Amino acid sequence: MADKPKKPSRLKARLPRGLADRGPAEIAATRHMVERIRLVFERYGFEPVETPAIEYTDVLGKFLPDQDRPNEGVFSFQDDDGQWLSLRYDLTAPLARYVAENYQHLALPHRSYRYGWVFRNEKPGPGRFRQFMQFDADTVGAPTMAADAEMCMLAADTMEALGIKRGDYVVKVNNRKVLDGVLDDVGVPAEKHLTTMRAIDKLDRLGIEGVRMLLGQGRKDESGDFTKGAELAESQIETIVGAITAPPTRAGTGPGDQELLEIERLIKAAGYEDRIRIDKTVVRGLEYYTGPVYEVELTFEVKDEKGRPVRFGSVGGGGRYDGLVSRFMGQPVPATGFSIGVSRLQAALTALGKLSEKPQAGPVVVTVFDRERIADYQAMVAKLRAANIRAELYLGNPKNNLGTQLKYADRRGAPCAIIQGGDEKARGEVQIKDLILGAEIAGLSKEREDYLKKQAEAQFAVKETDLVEEVGKLLKRHNMAPA
Amino acid sequence: MADKPKKPSRLKARLPRGLADRGPAEIAATRHMVERIRLVFERYGFEPVETPAIEYTDVLGKFLPDQDRPNEGVFSFQDDDGQWLSLRYDLTAPLARYVAENYQHLALPHRSYRYGWVFRNEKPGPGRFRQFMQFDADTVGAPTMAADAEMCMLAADTMEALGIKRGDYVVKVNNRKVLDGVLDDVGVPAEKHLTTMRAIDKLDRLGIEGVRMLLGQGRKDESGDFTKGAELAESQIETIVGAITAPPTRAGTGPGDQELLEIERLIKAAGYEDRIRIDKTVVRGLEYYTGPVYEVELTFEVKDEKGRPVRFGSVGGGGRYDGLVSRFMGQPVPATGFSIGVSRLQAALTALGKLSEKPQAGPVVVTVFDRERIADYQAMVAKLRAANIRAELYLGNPKNNLGTQLKYADRRGAPCAIIQGGDEKARGEVQIKDLILGAEIAGLSKEREDYLKKQAEAQFAVKETDLVEEVGKLLKRHNMAPA
Repeated sequence: MADKPKKPSRLKARLPRGLADRGPAEIAATRHMVERIRLVFERYGFEPVETPAIEYTDVLGKFLPDQDRPNEGVFSFQDDDGQWLSLRYDLTAPLARYVAENYQHLALPHRSYRYGWVFRNEKPGPGRFRQFMQFDADTVGAPTMAADAEMCMLAADTMEALGIKRGDYVVKVNNRKVLDGVLDDVGVPAEKHLTTMRAIDKLDRLGIEGVRMLLGQGRKDESGDFTKGAELAESQIETIVGAITAPPTRAGTGPGDQELLEIERLIKAAGYEDRIRIDKTVVRGLEYYTGPVYEVELTFEVKDEKGRPVRFGSVGGGGRYDGLVSRFMGQPVPATGFSIGVSRLQAALTALGKLSEKPQAGPVVVTVFDRERIADYQAMVAKLRAANIRAELYLGNPKNNLGTQLKYADRRGAPCAIIQGGDEKARGEVQIKDLILGAEIAGLSKEREDYLKKQAEAQFAVKETDLVEEVGKLLKRHNMAPA
Repeated sequence: MADKPKKPSRLKARLPRGLADRGPAEIAATRHMVERIRLVFERYGFEPVETPAIEYTDVLGKFLPDQDRPNEGVFSFQDDDGQWLSLRYDLTAPLARYVAENYQHLALPHRSYRYGWVFRNEKPGPGRFRQFMQFDADTVGAPTMAADAEMCMLAADTMEALGIKRGDYVVKVNNRKVLDGVLDDVGVPAEKHLTTMRAIDKLDRLGIEGVRMLLGQGRKDESGDFTKGAELAESQIETIVGAITAPPTRAGTGPGDQELLEIERLIKAAGYEDRIRIDKTVVRGLEYYTGPVYEVELTFEVKDEKGRPVRFGSVGGGGRYDGLVSRFMGQPVPATGFSIGVSRLQAALTALGKLSEKPQAGPVVVTVFDRERIADYQAMVAKLRAANIRAELYLGNPKNNLGTQLKYADRRGAPCAIIQGGDEKARGEVQIKDLILGAEIAGLSKEREDYLKKQAEAQFAVKETDLVEEVGKLLKRHNMAPA
């Protein structure tokens, strides 16, 4: 094998799986979303605080659901001094580090928000990426249920600020302590609580039969991969399934139930009872939650390109994590937070037609008719830009003919192209070709009088000294005047 | 050693060196900067395109200056399938991958911009971070110097859009081919060109004597670390130093000189000759440049806190990289780009006082006077927020007395605090405490008549039903009305 001459192989331009590039429309939509979310979060009194993408591995801790895979769902690497570093898998664990490190200097409760990319070394799938954006708010140093109730209201207000109608989403609240109580009652040992909760967390995706399997011996997915179950007894499984699927009733008397009642009371007083409800199936996958957990679910359906119904499900969630900051502190530091899955929510909003934010119109393209005169053409571009008009010089091979250059201008969505050959130059003129009008008349019959009239309007000569003014008029005619 | 009982050590909240957290003022300033840069780049006809933070290591290539360190300046880790991944160290190498991967679908020349975090596994120092932000524009498929000249104009216009006066910055242009010609002339072998250029690139930081050492045997820095030199002969070094320090004269006749002349001509035609000039000392550190290279330098001085002059030097740069896309393609794909060091430029603008963008005013704080009535207080907060007034409930321990709660409101920069005890409740009233006025009268003599008058104005009762309206009036008095 070693002797076999290697074929000279060209380097392949490729992206690792589970990662994606983003174009103008998608970027504009994210900017639009992030701006709206930001305003709601600030209205709630949160301040921006950001942490870097890299942290010490031990500082982040291992709280991810996907624990049986190598690298435990986190991208990790060693620093020069041998210490392990990881890319953040969420924005909560870094915030806990930030608060602990700056505890003496913070106004408590500390209320802050942040958004940014997080990274998970998980098996990618349709709509499941290894880099995605989250937008979080956290209140640290807040022991009461009022802080949790506020997170639920924040979730509701954010959905509506993004154009999702009341009734098209629901904020569901539960409490980890409630389910812990059920598990204790049926004798599930403490070390199996987390596996059990993670099985229940998959209800949405796998259905009740899938959850039953994960509570029992395990489950094989479509790809043939086997996930080991919690190995609970049949009777334990039945009680647990009964508890999570029972219709919502008046809460019990355990500490978790008391906390849920308190949240219910606060939500009602603030007038949010039509948007937020208690749901015993909500558990959330992350290990660090200690009390209330919540989830925002989109309830509307859209059809995919084949007409099949698509539901988006959970687009955000969070909960109370009283142990995450205190790990560093040796003193209790109660905290709660809410996180929006920006990337997933954006997919849903796009499907709903709520993100019609179009990328802006293309630039005016100044063509290179005579390649010896490129400096003159660039000077025209500079003048247009100085007047705040979006403009560019054709920068492809200047040997390309005018047809190729105009085709480029069309693809760029240019409102018009500027042309100056020798004759125009001699007369002190430039030609303006209106590409919007040009596209309109392309569909008209060439014999008709209005075709000829419009064709004349679609390309016309102006004095070179009037270039900026005339382009400005054209943009105005097409309602594209610069701001 | 292994028998020694371990002390139970608490997890330490700490950030790896060379990484930093960011607070409200810094984040607001970045947003402000990025927004202004974006508008200039779009005016130039560039469209947003973004790539992820992780790429295949071989796709990024090894073009960083810091090649003798382990990991070669890049954070790398292995994927599940054994392939090596890296965090991007700039935004150019990923863009080259993007263009090659999508070549058939792009309108050429491809003109796009992007900003985001990049990561370098380098030795951190003052102002030198391992994660920092860049804002790039690139034109791919553009063979002529017009594309490079445009990048220089873009650099100049961006500086001015950020409030940097003409004369306080300069865009310097050189051409790698010019220096290559000098090196060939004095017999420096091709494999030593890059080391030589990197030595010259440090002129700004090390001065001419430092460069001389790096061109010769090498140089020991303050920390005692030794950098091996290019080991050129004394006569070679003298010719090179002469070439880069000679006063700018008319360009020579080599291909690099011809390209510089063409750029000079284009810049003059567009009226930018007072902002952009040829400078033979500019080389840039990255390996992938093949022709024109440019750099924006801030030329003003500010004093640091000890009154010592500080210069910021280079805050951006770029150049032509004709080989970077074609590596993937088997066909020539000429390209050029410009990159702003957002983090470094922000430090400079802050020192210059150009980023006085203050974080917004604090929220109205509704205090918890009676902890049994927390639901009522939260309802008040919800009403204020519904009227688009920034507001929050005091979420610290509700046992904390009013003094502690008001101190919190002060630290948060709250314009006012809302208080409702049993007496007020009975009368259907709330107290509004004007904290801005409160701060003003704190300095007045307590005997004076205006102190007593203002003290009365600083806390007053209103009907509970008028809460939102009265808070709105207070905000208006302090010019803080919501948008």
